[in-house]
Amino acid sequence: MNSILVLNGPNLNLLGKREPHIYGHETLADVEQSVIAHAAGRATVVCQQSNHEGTLVDLIQDARGQFDGIIINAGAYTHTSVAILDALNAFEGKVVELHISNVHRREAFRHHSYLSVRADAVVAGMGTFGYLASLDYLLKVLGD
Amino acid sequence: MNSILVLNGPNLNLLGKREPHIYGHETLADVEQSVIAHAAGRATVVCQQSNHEGTLVDLIQDARGQFDGIIINAGAYTHTSVAILDALNAFEGKVVELHISNVHRREAFRHHSYLSVRADAVVAGMGTFGYLASLDYLLKVLGD
Amino acid sequence: MNSILVLNGPNLNLLGKREPHIYGHETLADVEQSVIAHAAGRATVVCQQSNHEGTLVDLIQDARGQFDGIIINAGAYTHTSVAILDALNAFEGKVVELHISNVHRREAFRHHSYLSVRADAVVAGMGTFGYLASLDYLLKVLGD
Amino acid sequence: MNSILVLNGPNLNLLGKREPHIYGHETLADVEQSVIAHAAGRATVVCQQSNHEGTLVDLIQDARGQFDGIIINAGAYTHTSVAILDALNAFEGKVVELHISNVHRREAFRHHSYLSVRADAVVAGMGTFGYLASLDYLLKVLGD
Amino acid sequence: MNSILVLNGPNLNLLGKREPHIYGHETLADVEQSVIAHAAGRATVVCQQSNHEGTLVDLIQDARGQFDGIIINAGAYTHTSVAILDALNAFEGKVVELHISNVHRREAFRHHSYLSVRADAVVAGMGTFGYLASLDYLLKVLGD
Amino acid sequence: MNSILVLNGPNLNLLGKREPHIYGHETLADVEQSVIAHAAGRATVVCQQSNHEGTLVDLIQDARGQFDGIIINAGAYTHTSVAILDALNAFEGKVVELHISNVHRREAFRHHSYLSVRADAVVAGMGTFGYLASLDYLLKVLGD
Amino acid sequence: MNSILVLNGPNLNLLGKREPHIYGHETLADVEQSVIAHAAGRATVVCQQSNHEGTLVDLIQDARGQFDGIIINAGAYTHTSVAILDALNAFEGKVVELHISNVHRREAFRHHSYLSVRADAVVAGMGTFGYLASLDYLLKVLGD
Amino acid sequence: MNSILVLNGPNLNLLGKREPHIYGHETLADVEQSVIAHAAGRATVVCQQSNHEGTLVDLIQDARGQFDGIIINAGAYTHTSVAILDALNAFEGKVVELHISNVHRREAFRHHSYLSVRADAVVAGMGTFGYLASLDYLLKVLGD
Amino acid sequence: MNSILVLNGPNLNLLGKREPHIYGHETLADVEQSVIAHAAGRATVVCQQSNHEGTLVDLIQDARGQFDGIIINAGAYTHTSVAILDALNAFEGKVVELHISNVHRREAFRHHSYLSVRADAVVAGMGTFGYLASLDYLLKVLGD
Amino acid sequence: MNSILVLNGPNLNLLGKREPHIYGHETLADVEQSVIAHAAGRATVVCQQSNHEGTLVDLIQDARGQFDGIIINAGAYTHTSVAILDALNAFEGKVVELHISNVHRREAFRHHSYLSVRADAVVAGMGTFGYLASLDYLLKVLGD
Amino acid sequence: MNSILVLNGPNLNLLGKREPHIYGHETLADVEQSVIAHAAGRATVVCQQSNHEGTLVDLIQDARGQFDGIIINAGAYTHTSVAILDALNAFEGKVVELHISNVHRREAFRHHSYLSVRADAVVAGMGTFGYLASLDYLLKVLGD
Amino acid sequence: MNSILVLNGPNLNLLGKREPHIYGHETLADVEQSVIAHAAGRATVVCQQSNHEGTLVDLIQDARGQFDGIIINAGAYTHTSVAILDALNAFEGKVVELHISNVHRREAFRHHSYLSVRADAVVAGMGTFGYLASLDYLLKVLGD
Repeated sequence: MNSILVLNGPNLNLLGKREPHIYGHETLADVEQSVIAHAAGRATVVCQQSNHEGTLVDLIQDARGQFDGIIINAGAYTHTSVAILDALNAFEGKVVELHISNVHRREAFRHHSYLSVRADAVVAGMGTFGYLASLDYLLKVLGD
Repeated sequence: MNSILVLNGPNLNLLGKREPHIYGHETLADVEQSVIAHAAGRATVVCQQSNHEGTLVDLIQDARGQFDGIIINAGAYTHTSVAILDALNAFEGKVVELHISNVHRREAFRHHSYLSVRADAVVAGMGTFGYLASLDYLLKVLGD
Repeated sequence: MNSILVLNGPNLNLLGKREPHIYGHETLADVEQSVIAHAAGRATVVCQQSNHEGTLVDLIQDARGQFDGIIINAGAYTHTSVAILDALNAFEGKVVELHISNVHRREAFRHHSYLSVRADAVVAGMGTFGYLASLDYLLKVLGD
Repeated sequence: MNSILVLNGPNLNLLGKREPHIYGHETLADVEQSVIAHAAGRATVVCQQSNHEGTLVDLIQDARGQFDGIIINAGAYTHTSVAILDALNAFEGKVVELHISNVHRREAFRHHSYLSVRADAVVAGMGTFGYLASLDYLLKVLGD
Repeated sequence: MNSILVLNGPNLNLLGKREPHIYGHETLADVEQSVIAHAAGRATVVCQQSNHEGTLVDLIQDARGQFDGIIINAGAYTHTSVAILDALNAFEGKVVELHISNVHRREAFRHHSYLSVRADAVVAGMGTFGYLASLDYLLKVLGD
Repeated sequence: MNSILVLNGPNLNLLGKREPHIYGHETLADVEQSVIAHAAGRATVVCQQSNHEGTLVDLIQDARGQFDGIIINAGAYTHTSVAILDALNAFEGKVVELHISNVHRREAFRHHSYLSVRADAVVAGMGTFGYLASLDYLLKVLGD
Repeated sequence: MNSILVLNGPNLNLLGKREPHIYGHETLADVEQSVIAHAAGRATVVCQQSNHEGTLVDLIQDARGQFDGIIINAGAYTHTSVAILDALNAFEGKVVELHISNVHRREAFRHHSYLSVRADAVVAGMGTFGYLASLDYLLKVLGD
Repeated sequence: MNSILVLNGPNLNLLGKREPHIYGHETLADVEQSVIAHAAGRATVVCQQSNHEGTLVDLIQDARGQFDGIIINAGAYTHTSVAILDALNAFEGKVVELHISNVHRREAFRHHSYLSVRADAVVAGMGTFGYLASLDYLLKVLGD
Repeated sequence: MNSILVLNGPNLNLLGKREPHIYGHETLADVEQSVIAHAAGRATVVCQQSNHEGTLVDLIQDARGQFDGIIINAGAYTHTSVAILDALNAFEGKVVELHISNVHRREAFRHHSYLSVRADAVVAGMGTFGYLASLDYLLKVLGD
Repeated sequence: MNSILVLNGPNLNLLGKREPHIYGHETLADVEQSVIAHAAGRATVVCQQSNHEGTLVDLIQDARGQFDGIIINAGAYTHTSVAILDALNAFEGKVVELHISNVHRREAFRHHSYLSVRADAVVAGMGTFGYLASLDYLLKVLGD
Repeated sequence: MNSILVLNGPNLNLLGKREPHIYGHETLADVEQSVIAHAAGRATVVCQQSNHEGTLVDLIQDARGQFDGIIINAGAYTHTSVAILDALNAFEGKVVELHISNVHRREAFRHHSYLSVRADAVVAGMGTFGYLASLDYLLKVLGD
Repeated sequence: MNSILVLNGPNLNLLGKREPHIYGHETLADVEQSVIAHAAGRATVVCQQSNHEGTLVDLIQDARGQFDGIIINAGAYTHTSVAILDALNAFEGKVVELHISNVHRREAFRHHSYLSVRADAVVAGMGTFGYLASLDYLLKVLGD
C-alpha cells in the first residue's frame, strides 16, 4: 500500500479561521481527516504542517525513502523558497503542488512558483477538494 | 443533472498520435469516452475540439445557458488568446483550465496563461487523468 | 457618396447580452442600425462581425477598392493580431480604431494595440456613441 | 444647459503656427471658436490654455462645481503629470482626453498617458475635429 | 527655538474637500493649525502650499538658512519631480517626506519617490497625524 | 521523389498587389509556379495559402506522412502563433521558415519568431528567390 | 487599555552592537524599555525578537485576538517574506511597518517591501524614535 | 550678428552657492557675464533663468524668430520634461544641450535626457567652460 | 563578372575540427573551395577568415569598391560587434549574413544580431550549403 | 592560531546521498573531516550545518568575536536570504562564499547571490576541494 | 607645454569618404591637422587611429605618463568595450569623450557609452569642431 | 606531467602598476613566476597575456591538444566576449575562470560573465593567490 505525505506550509494552520469567504470554513484538521478518510484502504497518509521553511525542508528530507508521494501546499514559500525546491529535488517520489485558491487571480508575485518545475502535477483553485483529487492522481500514477 | 462541455484546442486532435512519451498513447477519442463514462449517471458531457481560435470562441458562446461547466484545454491558445478569455468571461458557469503536461517544465512562453484569471480551477501535469479530476471537481462545486 | 465598412471582432456579437453595466443594453444589431441611420444620405455603410481572426483579415482584404473607410472594433484581436494590422496596412482608405469601453481602465494587456500605429484615429470609452463619432470623423476627412 | 471646459496644455498655443503638416493651419483661437459655435444653444463652453502644469491643476480645481465636463488636451503633460491626474480625480464631472495627432504613431514615450485611467473617453488622431466629437459625446452622456 | 517649514504640494489645498473616505474631513487649514499648535513653545512653524512645481522649488530655495527642517508632502510631484529633489539637496537642514495615505496600497507609479533618497525620514499612511509625528521627530533630532 | 509543401500565411495572397516597392511585382501564383518549375523532375510541390491560423494548423497536420518537407512563410502568424509551432512540432519532416523581406529591418515585434526554434533553417530578405533557395536546401538535405 | 506587540526581526538583536554610526548606540533592550515607558498608562506593550521567519509568523498568528496593534520591524524579511505578509493579513488589528534607517538610501533590493501593502502606516529613517512615533500613531487611531 | 539665448533651468540660480566642490565658485551671474563677454562683437547674448517648467516653455516659444540659437541647461527638467522638448521642437534655430557636471557619473535617472533627440549638440562635464564652447560651436555653425 | 567576398569570423577556422555533430566534417578550406567551384564562370570569389574583430573591420573597409557583395559569417562577433556593423554600413554592395547552425535553437544571447539591420538577406541553419545559396542569391540580385 | 567556521546551509546534509553525479560521493561528514585535517596545526575549524535560515543567522551572529573567518556554502539561501547577508555584514572577519557545483551552469535564479557583495572571495565549481582552497586562502590573508 | 593624445577608433579612418551628409567632407587627416594647428604654441598633439580594440587599449596604456589628456572618439567601441574603459581608468590624465554626430538621434544601442563614467567631459554632435572645443577645454583645465 | 596555460587578458599587463590598493603591488611577471614556482615538479606552466580579443582566441585555439587545463583571467573581455567563450568551447581540457578582485562588488556590468557557463570552476576575490588555488584545483582534477 502506498504512503503519502500531505505537507502544509505557513499560515495554513489558520485554515477555516481566517477569510472564510476565500478559504471556506473547513479547518486544517478537517481537511487532513478528509484526506485520510479518502485514502482509507488505498494508502497510508501522514499530515504535517509548519510555518518554518527549514522545518519543511527537514520534513521533505525525512520523507526520502519513507513516502511514495508528497502533496505539498507550501503556501507563501511557494513563491520564495529555493530551499524547498532543492529538498523536493532530492525526493525520489511523485510530487503534487497544490493551492486551495486560484493563485492566478491574486497578486502578481503569487503567479510564480519555484516548485512547479519539480512538481509532477499542479492543482490550483479547487478549494480543499484539491487534496482529494491530488490523492486520486497519486494513487493512479503510483499504481497499487 | 449537470451538463459539462469538454473543449479541446489546437493539435489535441493528434493526442496519442504524436510524442507518446509526453502525451501517452490514449487518443482524444479515448479520453472523451473516459470522461463520458466517468460522468455516467452524474452529468451530461459533450466533447468538442477545434484547431481554430474563432471556432473555440463560437463554441464557448454557444455554451452560454446550455452548460453548467466547461473543462477547457486550450492548448497553444492558452498562451496567446485574449478572445477565448473574453468568451469565457461571458460564460456564467464554472470553468476548469486543464493541461495534460506540466507546462511549467516547458518553454517560458508556456508559463503564462491568459485564461487562468478567469478559470475557477487550474490543473496541469496529471496527464489525461486530469479530465476526470476536473469533472469530479465540477460536479462537487455544481452540486446535484 | 462614400462607403464605410463597420467591422466588429470577437465577442461583440454578444453586445447587450453580457455585462450590461459595462457595455450597455444595446445589441450589436441596434448599434449597426444606428450607424446606418446616422449615415443616411451621407454614406453607404456595411456592417460585418466575426469571431475569427482569419475572417476579419479576409473582410479587410475584400474592402480594398470597395470602401473608403473602415471603423474597426477588433475586440480582443486588437491586442494580439499582427495579421489584422497587416491587412489594414494593405487597405488604402481611412481607418478608425474603436473601443466601446475605456481600455486603459482595464487589464494591462488591453493597453497595447497592434492596430493603433496604422489607424488614422483611435476612439475609446465613448460607448456605442463612438461609432457615430467615428463615422462623422470619416465623412469629414473623406469629404464628399 | 451644460457647461464644458476646454483645456489645452503646453505648446498648444502655437497651434497652426508650427508643423502645419502635422497639426494643420487652424490656430487655437480658430479651434476654440469652432467648439463654441458647435455648442451654441446646447452648452456653455469656456476655453483655457496654459504652458504651466501648476496652472492647469489650478484650472481643473476651479472647475469643480463649475463645469459638467472637461475636454482636456494636456499635450506633453499627458505623459509626465501625475498632478493633473490627481486634479482630474478630484473633479466630479465627465472628462474626455484628446490628442490632435495619433500619438501611437510617434515616439514611444508618447504612448503612455497618466490621464487615461481617469478619463471617461479618449480620442486621438481626429485632428481638431476631435474637439467637436468630444463635445458631442459629452452632451450625449450629460444629457440635457 | 527651531523653525520648521511645512510644505504641501499639488491638490493638497483640496484636503478635506475631496475623497474624505481616504483623506478624512480635516482641511489643510485645520492641519496647519494643528501643527502650529503642536509646536507651540517648541518651534516656529511656517506653512505653505502650491500646485506649482517651480513655486515649490522657489520655496525650498528660500528656506535655505531660514529653516532648520522641512516637512514636505509633495503630493504628485513626489513621483515626477527631480527639480524638487535638487532643491532639497541644496537645503542644509533635516527633511521629512510625508504622505497622508499609504502610497504603497495605490497605483504602482506612486510606489516610487524621487525624494526619499534625500529625505532623512519618510512617513506614510498615518493620516494627518503624520505631520505631528514628523514635527516631534524633527524637534528630537534638531535638539533644542 | 520527395514531396514538398509550400505554405503561405495571412496576406500573402496579396503578393504583388500591395506595396510592390517592398514585395515586388510577382503575384503569389507567379511564385508558386516558379517553385513548381524549379522543382521539376526533382520533387513534387504542393502550394497552399490561408489567412486563417486554424487552417494553417490543419494543413500542417495533414502534411504529416504526406510531405517530406515544408517551406512555410507564416506571415504575421510567425510572431503570434504557438499553435502553428505546435503543429510543426508534430510534423516529422524538414522545415524551412521563410520571409520575403528582411524582418530585422522592420518593427521590433517582427524580430521574434515562434517558429524558428522548430525550423531547420531560416531565410529572410531574399525576396521570392528565397523559395527557390529553400527548395534547393530541402532537396539537398532530404537526398534523392 | 490597548495592547501593542512590538516585533523585531533578524539581526535587530544586535542593535547598538554593530555599525553604531548607522543604528546608534541604543541596544534593543534600551529601545524596548523606551517603548514600554512611553506607553505607560496608555497601553500594554509586549516586545519580541527573532531571527527566524517561521517564528515571526508564529508570533503574529498568536497575536490574533491578543493585541490591538503591531509595530513590526521585519528587518531583512521585509524584502523577502510573503509568509509574514500572509500572517499579517490574518491579523485583524492595526499594523505599522518600521525601519530604523532610511531604506531608500540603501541597496535597491531594500526599496521593495512585501509588507507595505498590508501595513496601515510605514515609517523609515526616524531612528529608534520611530518606535515611539508608531506607538503614538497606534494609540491615536485605536482610540481609548 | 547672431543672437543667442542662454537658458538655465531649476536650481541653477544657486550656482556657486551650493556644493562648490561639484559646481565651482562661479555664480550664475558670473557665468552669464563670461558668456556675454566671450560673445562680444560676435553675437548678441540674452540670459534667462527660471525654476518653472512652464516659464521655460514660454521663454523658448518667445525665442522663435528672435534668436538664432539656444544654449539650454535645463537642469532637472532635462530628465522629466516633454513640454520643453516640444517647445524646442517648435524652435527653428540651433540648440545646444549643456550640463555643467558629467551627468553620466551621477544617479541613473540623470543619464536619460528628453532633450537630446532635439538638440544639435550635447556638452556635459566641461564645467562652466561648456557655455563658452557651446557659444563657439553655435557661432561656427550659424556662420556670420 | 561580379566579385564576391566570403568573410568568416572567429573560430570558423576550426570548422570540421570541433563539434562535427553540429558543424559537420567539412573544413573551412573545403567550404571555401565549394563556393569558388559553385561560382565558377559566374563570379570571382575571394575568401578570408580572421579571429580579430579589427581585422574583419579592415577587410570590410578594403572591400569598398573592390567587391559587389559580401557573404559574412561573423560568428560570435554577430552578437557583440557594432564596429563590424559600421564597416558594413560603409560598404556599398549587397550583404548576406550567414549562420551555419540555426542560432535560434541556441543560447538567448545568440538570437540577437547587430548585423541583420544592415544585411540584405539573412540565412541560418542551412549548414555549409548556406554559402552556396547565398552566392546564388547575390548573383541573382547583382545581375550579370 | 586562527579559528575558522565552516557553515553549510539547506540540503547540504544530504551531500553524497543525492545526485552523486553532480555532488560526488563524499558525505558532509567526510568533507568536514577533510577540512579539519587540512587545517591541522594551522587553524581551529568548527563545522555547522542547518536547513533553517534563522539558525544560520544565529550561528553567524555567534561567530562574531569567536572566529577569524567563515567559509559559507549557504546553498539555496544564497539566492533568497537578505537576513544572512545582514548577519555576515555584522561579522568582522573574512568571508568566503563557496558553491560545490558551478552555479552559472544551472537555472538562472541560481546566478544571483545576495552574499557575494559581502564576501571577500567567491569560489564555485571546484567540488569539495573548494573547501580546502578556501581554507588556504583564509589562512593566507589572515596571516599567522 | 601640455601634450594631448587624439585617439580615433574604428571606421573613423573613413571620415569624409562615407556618408558625407552625416559626417561632412573633411577627412581624418584634415581633422588631425586642424587640431594640431589649433594647438599650435599651446600644446603638443599626437593623433592615432585604429580599427582594433586591443590596439586602442595598447595606445591608451602607452599614454600613461606620456600625455596630460586624451580626446577619444572610440566610435563603435564606445558602446561595447569595457577593455577601453579599463585602460582609461588606468590613465591618470584628463579624458574627453567625443562623438562627431549626435548619437542620441541614432539607434538605441548608441545611447549607452561604457566610457562616459570615466570621461571628465563628453561632447556629441558638434561635428569635427568638437575636437577643437575639446582641446580648448583640456588646455583650460590642465592649465599652462 | 600536466601542462597548464595561464592566460591573462586586457590591462592585466599593468598589474602592480595601477590601483595597487585594489590589485596589490605584485606585477604580472611576479604572479607568473609564483604560479610556475608553485607548479614546480607537478605541472608545466606557460603564461601569456594580450590586450587583443582575437589574440586570446588564437591562443586558446592553439592550446587545443597542447594543454590539459587553462586558467583564464579574461579581464574586461569576461563581460563582452562571446568569441572567447566559443574558443573555450572548442578546448577539450579543464578551464578555471579567475578574477583577482571580487567583481560582485563592482559595477553591475561586471556581474555577468560570458565564460562562466563554460568554465569548470570560477574563483573571484582571492587576489593573486587565486592563481595558485586554481592551479591546485586543476592538478587535483586532472590527476597525475
